[in-house]
Amino acid sequence: MEIDYITTLGLIAGLLSTIAYLPQVIKTWKSKSASDLSWSMLITLCAGIILWLVYATYIQDIPLIAANIVTLLLASIILVLKIKYN
Amino acid sequence: MEIDYITTLGLIAGLLSTIAYLPQVIKTWKSKSASDLSWSMLITLCAGIILWLVYATYIQDIPLIAANIVTLLLASIILVLKIKYN
Repeated sequence: MEIDYITTLGLIAGLLSTIAYLPQVIKTWKSKSASDLSWSMLITLCAGIILWLVYATYIQDIPLIAANIVTLLLASIILVLKIKYN
Repeated sequence: MEIDYITTLGLIAGLLSTIAYLPQVIKTWKSKSASDLSWSMLITLCAGIILWLVYATYIQDIPLIAANIVTLLLASIILVLKIKYN
């Protein structure tokens, strides 16, 4: 029962840190510009998320897996928009 | 030995996802402006990081604890700069 409580805590943590990326995705989508976002930052971020995902799969941590799948999706959208509008 | 390899992977993941925040901190610091960063995003992000930290402490995951302490520090700097320059 305690593990369920902890998993829920982790899922809420993942939800919040993921939601925080949404305004950036929406802003980039609407403005059709991502020139203020640096390539090095986006690529470092995507590499970091992919490694987190590998790590989370190793330790079989559900909240960490879920959060990083969604974050990778959002970061990829920003990256694709930047390539598209560049 | 395998657990060391996995922990190293997690630490590299944390390093990359943390480094990705640095350009934003430096940009906000230099420009003395954080008007483009929304309050809701910053507060959601900080809340998310704090919950990740609580979760990481529960599951005693060293890479997750380390990454979230550094990320919380960087996000707090951005938040303090935004309050200061507002």
